[in-house]
Amino acid sequence: MGDATSLLTDRYELTMLEASLRDGTGSRRCVFELFGRRLPGGRRFGVVAGTGRLLQAIEDFRFGDDELRFLHDEKVVDAATLAFLADYRFTGTVTGYREGELYFPGSPVLTVEAGFAEGVILETVALSILNHDSAVATAAARMSIAAGDRPLAEMGSRRAQERSAVAAARAAHIVGFGATSNLEAGRTWGVPTMGTAAHAWTLLHDSEEDAFRAQVATLGTGTTLLVDTYDIRRGVETAIAVAGTGLGGVRLDSGDLPTVAAYVRGLLDDLGAHETKITVTSDLDEYAIAALAASPVDAYGVGTSVVTGSGTPTAGMVYKLVARQDDAGSWVSVAKASTDKASTGGRKAAFRTLERGTATSELIVVSDGFEEVDDAASHPDARALQVPLVTEGETDAAHVGAAGVQAARTHHAQVREELPIRALALSKGDPALPTVFVDRA
Amino acid sequence: MGDATSLLTDRYELTMLEASLRDGTGSRRCVFELFGRRLPGGRRFGVVAGTGRLLQAIEDFRFGDDELRFLHDEKVVDAATLAFLADYRFTGTVTGYREGELYFPGSPVLTVEAGFAEGVILETVALSILNHDSAVATAAARMSIAAGDRPLAEMGSRRAQERSAVAAARAAHIVGFGATSNLEAGRTWGVPTMGTAAHAWTLLHDSEEDAFRAQVATLGTGTTLLVDTYDIRRGVETAIAVAGTGLGGVRLDSGDLPTVAAYVRGLLDDLGAHETKITVTSDLDEYAIAALAASPVDAYGVGTSVVTGSGTPTAGMVYKLVARQDDAGSWVSVAKASTDKASTGGRKAAFRTLERGTATSELIVVSDGFEEVDDAASHPDARALQVPLVTEGETDAAHVGAAGVQAARTHHAQVREELPIRALALSKGDPALPTVFVDRA
Repeated sequence: MGDATSLLTDRYELTMLEASLRDGTGSRRCVFELFGRRLPGGRRFGVVAGTGRLLQAIEDFRFGDDELRFLHDEKVVDAATLAFLADYRFTGTVTGYREGELYFPGSPVLTVEAGFAEGVILETVALSILNHDSAVATAAARMSIAAGDRPLAEMGSRRAQERSAVAAARAAHIVGFGATSNLEAGRTWGVPTMGTAAHAWTLLHDSEEDAFRAQVATLGTGTTLLVDTYDIRRGVETAIAVAGTGLGGVRLDSGDLPTVAAYVRGLLDDLGAHETKITVTSDLDEYAIAALAASPVDAYGVGTSVVTGSGTPTAGMVYKLVARQDDAGSWVSVAKASTDKASTGGRKAAFRTLERGTATSELIVVSDGFEEVDDAASHPDARALQVPLVTEGETDAAHVGAAGVQAARTHHAQVREELPIRALALSKGDPALPTVFVDRA
Repeated sequence: MGDATSLLTDRYELTMLEASLRDGTGSRRCVFELFGRRLPGGRRFGVVAGTGRLLQAIEDFRFGDDELRFLHDEKVVDAATLAFLADYRFTGTVTGYREGELYFPGSPVLTVEAGFAEGVILETVALSILNHDSAVATAAARMSIAAGDRPLAEMGSRRAQERSAVAAARAAHIVGFGATSNLEAGRTWGVPTMGTAAHAWTLLHDSEEDAFRAQVATLGTGTTLLVDTYDIRRGVETAIAVAGTGLGGVRLDSGDLPTVAAYVRGLLDDLGAHETKITVTSDLDEYAIAALAASPVDAYGVGTSVVTGSGTPTAGMVYKLVARQDDAGSWVSVAKASTDKASTGGRKAAFRTLERGTATSELIVVSDGFEEVDDAASHPDARALQVPLVTEGETDAAHVGAAGVQAARTHHAQVREELPIRALALSKGDPALPTVFVDRA
């Protein structure tokens, strides 16, 4: 935190900025909308994540001497633009879905209102953060559903870029993972951390028994011993011989897990270690977790699949200009028209309609006129989905830092309860809720 | 650079560290090897990337007051371990494949020799960096092959976590992408940056003509105009009307690109703009680029697919203890034995055998005894693949920073020339070279 985020930006944003300062359009008031045209991977719902990180990134979006020198030396922009950037501080307004909220095709996940010059240069960093974190959260939520009441831990740091790994651990925690292996996620975001030992620990020692004995001496009998380095049967027997029947747990990281888990449960029970738990960690994804529902497994550790979005590493959301003022100060709805990437212009207000507590639609009211849209009144069973995140440059502190993560986690757990049962299916399908556009323009 | 990387670490590494300091095994000299069991996605070759970033991360792997306070407050490790970490500085030796080098299943991409305590805690950060960057480089190299002599630009920042995006731009540049949209990649790694305007630029203005006129006024007629916001025919006509037949280029970001590119080329030629280039940027991957080989396209911009590894976002490499000393100081080869994740113990020396300049195999000599392996002599047509990266804690400066990126780019271009023609196929298949293990133990 605190590192400048201003060069995490596509060059064309600064090019457009420069041109807009020259021709005067940079001061035109604009509305940018961040949304997904579809839910990737045939999933039933999406989960918004990264909002708290984005709000921090907007605060840190400053151009210091280093950034300005680079832009000058590389001739990216002219002197007038450098002067604008030196003073840059976002003074606009951002509203959006709460972090942890569900989203559907067309949901206005984030709305930025600012002068063109101020708003256009946030495009890349906003998309980078929300696309990554939402992709992870969307995949992780399915794993959380598949795991039911069994604890889930995120342990995929090694299969993600080193800073993505921290963001992924954070996103997974928001949607129900109880812990992470990633220490930086613990420090920065307050995610509980966990972990005991790898195969290297056993291989380091002259015998598996030596390794287990040393681990128990340090961590106590409540620790979890990794029993599959050599032979699983002997590993389990050695573990109980060393730690006693009060051993906290064993971890299995290879093999056909339903078979191996049942076998190990039987071994443990035969040895009298009825309370010793079994954690499995080998190449799990939401499907493998679901397939283990009937197996005697007590906890899951998920790696690659959660940090890479289980086949969908980006949410694919876009950041589009949807409305702007003209020289007379009147608002004009705008949208790209050609071919396959058309979108809906105009500012939008979003609601989730509910019947007896179950969500029935994503209702999006398009309103060019920018009168206050207060459709909550006209939809008594609808919940307004957008909240203020930044108001005239001031960030709402409730959404940032470790407290923001906990708030998002709580919110996610609540709104997931509203989903209809069909939304919980792991198979590919249509979005669980229809998106209904209402044009009030 | 310079930010502490020490908590980009799985908690179990510090747990093992603590236990090893207690039972004395922490000082056992160890060899850790980083390798991939297979090439992901049925690809014909892999590309090593991230080495320069990793060397920086190892230098920055320090535990300052903030890190130590977190570990203390969270009771991650005991006081003796905190004292060890406070003084931590890697003093071991790292050898490995040059950045930009090709790799195959079992290639010893990185070898770390150090005391267990020193070496074990680098596992996560080493894997995070090399798995991500190598996945991107491996995918991007295929795009570079498909593009042939046409320029390629990376512009996928918005579809990757914000810091991953910078690493991805760097990796793509190493394997042949000429430029990136990402400004931070320009500043940190010296990758050339590019970009002109988005659809928002056109939508901001009262007319497409106004937008083009303002862009040309700022960037000159050599700029590239985005012509598909409304109607492509009118967009092209307006572009030439505004900029003249000397317009540098037009960009197409939607539609069926082979059809649209041919249509636009015809329009431009009819208007006399024979030198105006066509850049295409819509959802390209290596297959789409290959399909455009016969189309009148001058340059490609690639987004999502390159930053997400085109379906394979992680290289899936692992970091394993392969040898250690015993109490008597003798080396012992070690490897996990059970079931599906077996690997080959022992330190390895790697060579690429060549016949008349074409690579024929990945030759890996396993040598437990740790005598100097100098098989280059016995294989006169083999090229040794491992180079010193860190020697007793001292990093070889040739591999880091922007100069390291350029060296890697040059090396990659050279070694790709050695590949047999079958390696250039985009279809899934076996690795282009067999990995041959020779056991000298």
